[in-house]
Amino acid sequence: MNKFDISVQTLRRLPDYLNYLHGIAKKEGYISATSIAAALNLNNVQVRKDLAYVSNAGRPRKGYPIEVLIKDLESFLGYHDVDSAVIVGAGHLGKALLHYSGFQAYGLKILAAFDNNEKILSEEKSGSIFHIDRMKEICSELKPKIGIIAVPAQAAQQVCDLLTECGVKAIWNFAPVHIAVSNNILVVNENMAAHLAMLSIHLRRPLEQSADKEINL
Amino acid sequence: MNKFDISVQTLRRLPDYLNYLHGIAKKEGYISATSIAAALNLNNVQVRKDLAYVSNAGRPRKGYPIEVLIKDLESFLGYHDVDSAVIVGAGHLGKALLHYSGFQAYGLKILAAFDNNEKILSEEKSGSIFHIDRMKEICSELKPKIGIIAVPAQAAQQVCDLLTECGVKAIWNFAPVHIAVSNNILVVNENMAAHLAMLSIHLRRPLEQSADKEINL
Repeated sequence: MNKFDISVQTLRRLPDYLNYLHGIAKKEGYISATSIAAALNLNNVQVRKDLAYVSNAGRPRKGYPIEVLIKDLESFLGYHDVDSAVIVGAGHLGKALLHYSGFQAYGLKILAAFDNNEKILSEEKSGSIFHIDRMKEICSELKPKIGIIAVPAQAAQQVCDLLTECGVKAIWNFAPVHIAVSNNILVVNENMAAHLAMLSIHLRRPLEQSADKEINL
Repeated sequence: MNKFDISVQTLRRLPDYLNYLHGIAKKEGYISATSIAAALNLNNVQVRKDLAYVSNAGRPRKGYPIEVLIKDLESFLGYHDVDSAVIVGAGHLGKALLHYSGFQAYGLKILAAFDNNEKILSEEKSGSIFHIDRMKEICSELKPKIGIIAVPAQAAQQVCDLLTECGVKAIWNFAPVHIAVSNNILVVNENMAAHLAMLSIHLRRPLEQSADKEINL
């Protein structure tokens, strides 16, 4: 299994496996994919496939040594090598991301957000939103690996260039526009409208065809 | 091609095709997938595959009749059968979704948001955020097809039940928790943390392995 081929669907389940294993009282022994599947109400073939991305400690008829599997999951999820990010744009979306609690399950940390809107800056109380003029200075100290673009489409490329100058290695782009980056930078484009459209199209599916009533994006 | 097998990646490109076709001056003739691909800087095999989900009007060596392709794209994207949604939770995320401009490219309309937080309600100026106590009354009038859950995890199931009572046919769930629904309701779970984790994992990929420098989610 090449871990870079992992799907978002599998990634969604990994923190659940980790939570479950952390909750087990006796961690000396082994645990089977079947037991994990039963506890989490999942298919055991799925669990086996998911864990194959993460660990090669599984043994036939024994399962996984619990302590090793916990370490492998933590290491895969980056618990020992926390990736940090900064957000540009502290409007509704930027603030939603800044305050989103789900990132810590993946060992991710949002360090700060930047904006040039005086109203946003003056109303700010959390201490984590700064004027964009201070971005280079603050980033040279915090050294974030990831830059998150949460500005309107027309400002996205300019913000992307600024993030690149600040040394980020990857961009998570929420602006509904294509951005150009230099060769060694990874870009992940997020398109929330396409997700809602996916739901909308499945909604028009005739009832007898609706095999999946749950879609995970 | 079964249109329900369409991927989010294809869905992302459909509005681009439509925009491009709308911009063509002479709409009487035919257009080839190759021309569309060249204009949008895409691979022509990809364009052919994408359009196969949407239209069967393509002819060998001629391409697609432009006017028919526009109609097929508009119909696929739901322009003639606009789906409407309401949001529950008007915190940062709810407001970000309420003000997001990308939905109209897919013929989607966010009608209103609901919250029980007096501070949010008193500061509201857009006229589209209402007290959750008015939800049944307002929904019985607006008849939204989609309910969007943008509340904290612990409130998600209760909100989901309320949306179901209001008659929505699908739920778009942003709360990082599994929700139970009755049989004929479609659920799409959104997990932004898993998306950021995907980026984080690819960031640790050795440089020589980084074939994809762009990921579309």
